[in-house]
Amino acid sequence: MMLRIENLDDLARGAAFLGTGGGGNPYLGKLLLERVMKDGFEVEVIGVDEVPDDALVIPTAGMGAPTISIEKLLVPDENVRALECLENFFGRPAYATMPIEAGGTNSVVPLIVGARRGIPVIDADGMGRAFPELQMVTFSVFGVRASPMSLADVHGNSVILNARDNATAEWLARGDCIRMGGHAAVAIYPMTGAEVKKYSIRRTLTLAIEIGQTIREARARGGDPLEALCRYLNECDTYGDARLIFEGKIVDMERRTTRGFAVGRATIAGAGDFSGRMEIDFQNENLVARQGGKNAVVVPDLICILDQDTAEPITTEALRYGQRVAVIGVGAPAIMCTPEALAVFGPAAFGLDDPFEPIGG
Amino acid sequence: MMLRIENLDDLARGAAFLGTGGGGNPYLGKLLLERVMKDGFEVEVIGVDEVPDDALVIPTAGMGAPTISIEKLLVPDENVRALECLENFFGRPAYATMPIEAGGTNSVVPLIVGARRGIPVIDADGMGRAFPELQMVTFSVFGVRASPMSLADVHGNSVILNARDNATAEWLARGDCIRMGGHAAVAIYPMTGAEVKKYSIRRTLTLAIEIGQTIREARARGGDPLEALCRYLNECDTYGDARLIFEGKIVDMERRTTRGFAVGRATIAGAGDFSGRMEIDFQNENLVARQGGKNAVVVPDLICILDQDTAEPITTEALRYGQRVAVIGVGAPAIMCTPEALAVFGPAAFGLDDPFEPIGG
Repeated sequence: MMLRIENLDDLARGAAFLGTGGGGNPYLGKLLLERVMKDGFEVEVIGVDEVPDDALVIPTAGMGAPTISIEKLLVPDENVRALECLENFFGRPAYATMPIEAGGTNSVVPLIVGARRGIPVIDADGMGRAFPELQMVTFSVFGVRASPMSLADVHGNSVILNARDNATAEWLARGDCIRMGGHAAVAIYPMTGAEVKKYSIRRTLTLAIEIGQTIREARARGGDPLEALCRYLNECDTYGDARLIFEGKIVDMERRTTRGFAVGRATIAGAGDFSGRMEIDFQNENLVARQGGKNAVVVPDLICILDQDTAEPITTEALRYGQRVAVIGVGAPAIMCTPEALAVFGPAAFGLDDPFEPIGG
Repeated sequence: MMLRIENLDDLARGAAFLGTGGGGNPYLGKLLLERVMKDGFEVEVIGVDEVPDDALVIPTAGMGAPTISIEKLLVPDENVRALECLENFFGRPAYATMPIEAGGTNSVVPLIVGARRGIPVIDADGMGRAFPELQMVTFSVFGVRASPMSLADVHGNSVILNARDNATAEWLARGDCIRMGGHAAVAIYPMTGAEVKKYSIRRTLTLAIEIGQTIREARARGGDPLEALCRYLNECDTYGDARLIFEGKIVDMERRTTRGFAVGRATIAGAGDFSGRMEIDFQNENLVARQGGKNAVVVPDLICILDQDTAEPITTEALRYGQRVAVIGVGAPAIMCTPEALAVFGPAAFGLDDPFEPIGG
């Protein structure tokens, strides 16, 4: 399908929801893609099954702390250049690009690259959500190498790195990203079409558009967008249980940009049907929501903070004292809850002690 | 000429002298090369004029803090792999390799690479001494780009980076080097033979061997090796004035490994003909020698600390409280004292306030 400018608000909103606080600011991502499309570049989105098995697929993304990327703006040139670095390395052009994660900006970056380079974008990603570190994708769980990967910055600097494993790729790339100013464009997890078919979370661009649309339409007809959203998610095949887990006012924000990440904690005082406090820890993305010292939802399940009235998703860099918010928890796709997957992006991978207990049991 | 195992002690000693405290430990460098030569690999050293103008020359070196590289030993494989990363990038093999600096290990690394890959090593470098940062070479002064450059570590990780300028190459590569454990093999400043002819300091491998030989022979005949060394240097065409500037005992050592460098200060209390104290600040290499608050010798002139009795050069990571040492100052080659060169590796490039005053006026 060809993406339309009319889809962009829905896409950015839905991707920001799936980004669970991270994946980059949805408003900025939308503006960037809108500009590219208004310049006449077209975005072709294709299904996973349309990709030939031997095609070279090079996913693209932005990397860094969202607190930085809202000040140090991404430009399409650096994203295209990151792709071209890997194409030069392989000595052949990419057949298609795709997201590695769903997120406000990171769902959109591959669309910008695809448009600018005239190659299709695959309707899938490697998380069905966003995670802070490069090795935290399904591709990694199934043994696909993150590298050779490339980083490019706005000053024309670029790096191609080849790491012995994906955690080392994260370690080296994070260092480069920090020295590039805390934010960089990357091309990563070069794969064959066959690998994309086996290891990706499918239809997540379409899902993002539908999530955005569900929220927009519920608002328009004066319904409850939070309720409409949970109903949509519970009916779609990709995710597990979705439910409203808390509502209230943000009464405290801790935030620091450290080791190349935006790390912190939001404390929400309950209101309406919810009493007590909920604390949500994040590292770019929301990792764990706790109430009364117990985990309510924990990675890889999705913890999404939204405006209480409009259900507009709020990414972690945009959280502010005094915001009235709703928290929705969503069960991760089944492929992300295997023991092998939990070893890569379950609670222990983030240094959290409690074991993973899926939302809805 | 073919290098002989009998040359290695002289080469390591002379290169350590020229390294002005840095460039890596001479004993370790010598052991590594000796092992390669005993395994049957031959080292061919060629003069600058023997290199075809259109030849691809890829210099090789070790990068990092000498305090780390004496614990985290270099292995020939990572040096060869750094070269091969750039060869793959260019899609053609290197005609020859060469040192970028003279130093205990860094004069030897290209000899190891040349031997293992069966390519000649050019008898020249880009400093005629050692400097701590990648942009601090004559090649840089004349506009040769440091990148594309590669880094490789002992774990099989490698990075190819392309920076907009050589100071940025240093900044990004230093970050990678730190994350690789504080020490890495690099291939850098890919050049044509024509560029090597125009911009390098010639015959510095031969000079290193002759310096080592001068010290050894003076010892053997019971002469004063310090005096013999200064006489040799004053007679050779490459350097300016050479003189003994201080003798005494190290009474204080400050040392820390920071930002990827070994940084510190040695304080020497005068003995014999010398009274008062001399303080020598270093960043991998010795940068400035001060006496009574005034600069005695400052970069790019060479400040070399040697054992008072044997004239064995002591690199900065090997300086210890209580050592009885002699300090020799040597005028840098004329090509390194132009205003353009001083901007890259003169006192101001290291944050030192006083202007450059060459030794011997």
